[in-house]
Amino acid sequence: MFEGPVQRLIDELARLPGIGRKSAQRLAFHLLAVDETDARRLAQAIIDMRDQVGRCRRCFNVAAGEECSICRDPRRDPTVVCVVERAQDIVVVERTQEFRGRYHVLEGVLSPISGIGPAQLRIAELARRVEEEGIVELIVATNPTVEGDTTAMWLATEFKPKGVRVSRLASGLPVGGDLDYADELTLGRALAGRRDL
Amino acid sequence: MFEGPVQRLIDELARLPGIGRKSAQRLAFHLLAVDETDARRLAQAIIDMRDQVGRCRRCFNVAAGEECSICRDPRRDPTVVCVVERAQDIVVVERTQEFRGRYHVLEGVLSPISGIGPAQLRIAELARRVEEEGIVELIVATNPTVEGDTTAMWLATEFKPKGVRVSRLASGLPVGGDLDYADELTLGRALAGRRDL
Repeated sequence: MFEGPVQRLIDELARLPGIGRKSAQRLAFHLLAVDETDARRLAQAIIDMRDQVGRCRRCFNVAAGEECSICRDPRRDPTVVCVVERAQDIVVVERTQEFRGRYHVLEGVLSPISGIGPAQLRIAELARRVEEEGIVELIVATNPTVEGDTTAMWLATEFKPKGVRVSRLASGLPVGGDLDYADELTLGRALAGRRDL
Repeated sequence: MFEGPVQRLIDELARLPGIGRKSAQRLAFHLLAVDETDARRLAQAIIDMRDQVGRCRRCFNVAAGEECSICRDPRRDPTVVCVVERAQDIVVVERTQEFRGRYHVLEGVLSPISGIGPAQLRIAELARRVEEEGIVELIVATNPTVEGDTTAMWLATEFKPKGVRVSRLASGLPVGGDLDYADELTLGRALAGRRDL
């Protein structure tokens, strides 16, 4: 319906999560109306991110080099590891300024219905880290959902026999919610009041 | 808070209309998680659009060349011109398949409060077209808002003395609404029932 290049941009924008056809159209016309440099800066930011950012080879956080800035930081305690579902959850925990250990990104949660078992997650890599890095505690910060709880229980069953303390963020997080939306205070309390599994 | 290139992309995305910090973050991590080619295709679509698309020198519609596809189409009636606020409104009118004339994009509406007078709009260009192109009717399809109505009245005052029929889309459009959200049927009826000003 639109001139080719406009329609192609609308199509690409509409593939993004949470962006419908109407929003995609508005965004495309916005990008047509703004300064040339503004539009190009967005395109370049996408390209730069894909060129420069990968996964940390240790914890699977986003990383501009081989390891992420947290794994590279010598002041972080390597013996306490906070286990999260997704890399973006790390920033939420960091904002509480109450955690000084490292992280491990599972890249998902156990979900038998969706066919996601331990082999689909970064659990083998976590087991290797527990063996090699002298980890004494895993704080499981998966979302307070059925899958998140199941994953936490599974990790406790797996790693407690190896002498590792496995704890879970305290309740206080709204049940069925998303870690991503927790405020710093609630999450800080949940960290302080974590309970053993 | 995030690694540099991720944060820069979040910042760019958050500048887009209707995209908050949280959505920008989700979109950035989505673009990090999808296939390399998908992310690059979006970036390229932005660049291509800015490289290839400009404004039609006649009607100010989006155009891949000097003139838009509608102005280049010899089957369109050059004597009837539909006047719209923004280029994206043209697609909405085209979808009714009831209009076979050309368009003119004002790039805004009269709004004394915002300091937008006739000189800030493409009205001089419209006056030139009326003189040079044998236009016999202007169908004013500005939004059914106070500013849209004011602009329609102003165009009627300006162009009726020059012997041009100036009509307005019939009521039927929800008052205070946005042309962009009208369904084809309502807009088709509004076109058929347009009234002289």
